[in-house]
Amino acid sequence: MQRRGLLLILSSPSGAGKSTLARRLMGWDPTIRFSVSATTRAPRPGEEDGREYYFRSRAQFEAMIADQQMLEHAEVFGNLYGSPRGPVEAAMAEGRDTLFDIDWQGGQQIRNSALGRDVVSVFVLPPSIAELDRRLRGRAQDSEEVIAGRMAKSRDEISHWAEYDYVLVNDDIDRSFKQLQTILEAERMRRDRQPALTDFVRGLNREFEQR
Amino acid sequence: MQRRGLLLILSSPSGAGKSTLARRLMGWDPTIRFSVSATTRAPRPGEEDGREYYFRSRAQFEAMIADQQMLEHAEVFGNLYGSPRGPVEAAMAEGRDTLFDIDWQGGQQIRNSALGRDVVSVFVLPPSIAELDRRLRGRAQDSEEVIAGRMAKSRDEISHWAEYDYVLVNDDIDRSFKQLQTILEAERMRRDRQPALTDFVRGLNREFEQR
Repeated sequence: MQRRGLLLILSSPSGAGKSTLARRLMGWDPTIRFSVSATTRAPRPGEEDGREYYFRSRAQFEAMIADQQMLEHAEVFGNLYGSPRGPVEAAMAEGRDTLFDIDWQGGQQIRNSALGRDVVSVFVLPPSIAELDRRLRGRAQDSEEVIAGRMAKSRDEISHWAEYDYVLVNDDIDRSFKQLQTILEAERMRRDRQPALTDFVRGLNREFEQR
Repeated sequence: MQRRGLLLILSSPSGAGKSTLARRLMGWDPTIRFSVSATTRAPRPGEEDGREYYFRSRAQFEAMIADQQMLEHAEVFGNLYGSPRGPVEAAMAEGRDTLFDIDWQGGQQIRNSALGRDVVSVFVLPPSIAELDRRLRGRAQDSEEVIAGRMAKSRDEISHWAEYDYVLVNDDIDRSFKQLQTILEAERMRRDRQPALTDFVRGLNREFEQR
């Protein structure tokens, strides 16, 4: 039966394992569409329009906001970032899910949008801050100041954990991935995501009538 | 982490496979508590108090209703049937789930009770009425009148499918059981069923403070 596509929002502080989970989920089910954000910041070397981001001018981006074409958006360090609505609705109409790798601000906006009832939100927590620190340091040789800034951002992000439907403590990536799969499989089965059931029950009633 | 026990309500017309699913679920996870109903009807040969039913006098049953000790109750053919609240709350406090094999009327009452937010409800549909008919006839040598009565009751039960969180079409019992497991595993993970998360995040914040 064709079902209604859902919006899977994955949020976490940087370093908690969200991107790994997102990548594994896409590999497990290639029908899932990853929501590519739009941004007004300039592309960095190697970045491609439509892959890392949709690169847009500020005028273009603001026109999209005015046209209600952004599911959510925010300004960060002078640049606009947002999730275009069109591709999400196209995926939903095909019964495909969209995966959002966004922060709590984006999550809040989408949950409070017209598509709010289609949202399943998952927050990924690190097993400890010491471990989060290790993972952040492992990535690159950043200054203590940069690390401290990231930790402050992490703390802010974590403070919104209770706004999510599900919260995973990622102390084992395999276990967390299995949990994420289970969540997605169950949420896809919810009655309100199975519009074909209405016709199916209509068929049962026709059978009753014809007895 | 200790979690909050949930109330799993399983409803379906007789013959759709609900009892088989319930039995398999209890075998899979013995911590699940099956809600034994109370009734004022007389025990039949072989029935044991506390196993098939809690057998109570009408006066006892009515006193339980007056004491708010019944999560739901209904009168059927002159006998009272209901789900006692005490054992459910005891199970919840231990982080154990309770499985209810009840009809739509009981489901409605529990969903609308103070424990409503702890309910996960699943309706099991037969793949067709012809198949339901076959399964009902396969059970015993009943008169056409008895079968017709059961079919009318089935139709009434099915008419309430849209009140449930999940609806399974049971055309393959193994597949349906797997779906039921997935639903239960995911629902157990919901944030609002994980009260220990609050303390866990408090611990993360303490770590942030101590840096």
